[in-house]
Amino acid sequence: MGINQKTLALGSKRSIIREIFEYSKTRASEIGAENVFDFSLGNPSVPAPAEVNDTIRQLLDSESSVLLHGYTSAQGDANVRGVIADSIKERFGVNITPNHIYMTCGAAASLSICLKAVIEEGMNDECIVFAPFFTEYRVFIENAGGKVVVSQPRKGDLQIDVADFESRINENTKAVIINSPNNPSGVVYGEETIAAVCEILKKKSEEYGRIIYLIADEPYRELVYTDVKVPYLMNYYKNTLVCYSYSKSLSLPGERIGYIAVCPEMEDAQEVYLSVCGAGRSLGYVCAPSLFQQVIARCQGAKVDIEIYRENRDLLYNALTEYGYECVKPDGAFYLFVKALEEDAYAFFEKAKAHEILVVPCDDFGVNGYVRIAYCVDKERVERALPAFKALSLEYKK
Amino acid sequence: MGINQKTLALGSKRSIIREIFEYSKTRASEIGAENVFDFSLGNPSVPAPAEVNDTIRQLLDSESSVLLHGYTSAQGDANVRGVIADSIKERFGVNITPNHIYMTCGAAASLSICLKAVIEEGMNDECIVFAPFFTEYRVFIENAGGKVVVSQPRKGDLQIDVADFESRINENTKAVIINSPNNPSGVVYGEETIAAVCEILKKKSEEYGRIIYLIADEPYRELVYTDVKVPYLMNYYKNTLVCYSYSKSLSLPGERIGYIAVCPEMEDAQEVYLSVCGAGRSLGYVCAPSLFQQVIARCQGAKVDIEIYRENRDLLYNALTEYGYECVKPDGAFYLFVKALEEDAYAFFEKAKAHEILVVPCDDFGVNGYVRIAYCVDKERVERALPAFKALSLEYKK
Repeated sequence: MGINQKTLALGSKRSIIREIFEYSKTRASEIGAENVFDFSLGNPSVPAPAEVNDTIRQLLDSESSVLLHGYTSAQGDANVRGVIADSIKERFGVNITPNHIYMTCGAAASLSICLKAVIEEGMNDECIVFAPFFTEYRVFIENAGGKVVVSQPRKGDLQIDVADFESRINENTKAVIINSPNNPSGVVYGEETIAAVCEILKKKSEEYGRIIYLIADEPYRELVYTDVKVPYLMNYYKNTLVCYSYSKSLSLPGERIGYIAVCPEMEDAQEVYLSVCGAGRSLGYVCAPSLFQQVIARCQGAKVDIEIYRENRDLLYNALTEYGYECVKPDGAFYLFVKALEEDAYAFFEKAKAHEILVVPCDDFGVNGYVRIAYCVDKERVERALPAFKALSLEYKK
Repeated sequence: MGINQKTLALGSKRSIIREIFEYSKTRASEIGAENVFDFSLGNPSVPAPAEVNDTIRQLLDSESSVLLHGYTSAQGDANVRGVIADSIKERFGVNITPNHIYMTCGAAASLSICLKAVIEEGMNDECIVFAPFFTEYRVFIENAGGKVVVSQPRKGDLQIDVADFESRINENTKAVIINSPNNPSGVVYGEETIAAVCEILKKKSEEYGRIIYLIADEPYRELVYTDVKVPYLMNYYKNTLVCYSYSKSLSLPGERIGYIAVCPEMEDAQEVYLSVCGAGRSLGYVCAPSLFQQVIARCQGAKVDIEIYRENRDLLYNALTEYGYECVKPDGAFYLFVKALEEDAYAFFEKAKAHEILVVPCDDFGVNGYVRIAYCVDKERVERALPAFKALSLEYKK
């Protein structure tokens, strides 16, 4: 056929989430949207804080169109990077400068760029991910020429299994991705776990005489419902790159705005930063969207109302466990990762569908036999869905 | 060092344009911005049409924040793609549908994605570009695993040298990029030339029994100052992908919004489209910025005021040729590609700098001995610069 078979396969691959999306629309037209209990999409249901649209209006009124909509430098507007560096310094005590910040088109871009910047193609580089993990990690790692190595979680609480992690490291390990709060489980990795992981990274880097980069993927950092601490990884391990996105924290997923922060204490930090710049260029990124660079710089203190998510979490978690479902109570993000009531998550998905419940069966997340429930929906949908979840569980008790 | 050496090299490479940018700022602080004749940047100087900011305000007032700033599907909002398909159909008579349109984060993304979608890594695929050419083509082609093959232009008018082009095609040729109006020369390739190029592509595809894809990079389509026709390549060759961006036509370069259009008559059009979707995914693109997708759909008829560019073009072209400079009168874009007054364009650049004139010496553009003058600046800057250009030319006549 004479085109790139890998990208053809990627574009053609049956996407369960897309199929559910289409089915959901069709079903809604048949029985009414209020009767379809769609929990498949991780699209924030809470509006952006009012500051966001207010800031856009102010910028349109006060700034020159040529500057506002013009190119910024490839790494992002210097003032915007300054605001972000100051915020990181203030919140986490890291002595970071604007020259360690690279603005991106969101978290997927941040990750793709970081992986491309550190992985050496053709050198058997491996990248460790912790199951359950966001399925696109595999795409980004493989595009950079790396191999995905999956570390299985502790049974029960889905925390990192530190011994399992240590056993996955070898002389080819180039990078490790930590995503906390986690998609799809909502789990926040505890400080002790993080400290243990970082100790192992230091020991193994020394043992193999090469740097292992830690990539912190943290778009859900601000979506936490308990007083659990979300450790800032630069404070535990110097060879850390933080990938951030405002998609969830400001409910702006479509606007594609985020950043990469290179730890100032990293060995050869300046060279890694330059490699990040080069990787962005090679992937076709020119600069992050200019209007939204200015918006996020002016909305650093703004917050979405996460009470709505918290209420949904509590409602769902309490009801589902009462009905006999097994799941870890999530500290953050907006997902419940629920054990299917039979071994085959896809069969369970089909039975749930018969009750008009749409959830994502997640074998691609690296753990078999679970489904993901995205509770970033109206509270009413949760309330109306509870009897269906109950009926579904009763079906398995017959 | 253990990181990606290619991206490190890309990020570290001395960028003449960046250096000029820094020098220009410093020099402006020394002698006043009005005395620095900076023609180095291709950043539109004409504001976006008023419809753009008006549309943003209307969208903020009327649309739900969750929908407006939310994810669209990966290929872009269906209605937005419909508007674009209708516009292409109406303007160029191509029977295209929304399912042939893929929204992107601007022209660089469009090109990177198309090249990645068609080039097969490790198969010695080659991509032909016509000198002078936009320097980033090399980065995108090489990132996709292809080899750059440069076709030299006709002397004098810098049009495509059809015989030279034909001689560059072989059994490894996978793609050809045509950029018209051209960056950096401003030349529009004539209809006869395009027809001849496309005939050769048909003949050679048949001869080698494989499709050669034509990639039309046309962000400057609307910036044309004469009645010259800019042929729509799908009407000449069915295996065409059009890469479009609103950066120049609506003066929105920082907002990163454009699209890829796959010719509906293409062999295996659907598979190529899927490969485009997969390539976008693998490069870390999730969707094009959502607010600006809606903006461009509502501003399809809007135009920037290109009279300002036309006046600059005429002023500069007339004066420079009078002073003895050699250059092709450009029909479009906002660049003059001027022969340096000595063989070494970099030496000429330095002499121009002594007259406070900043232009880009362009050996990387694939033709030696030229400089690019970007006339997307205030008319006043052009007027004030003319005596300096005159003095510079006189220096060479001594």
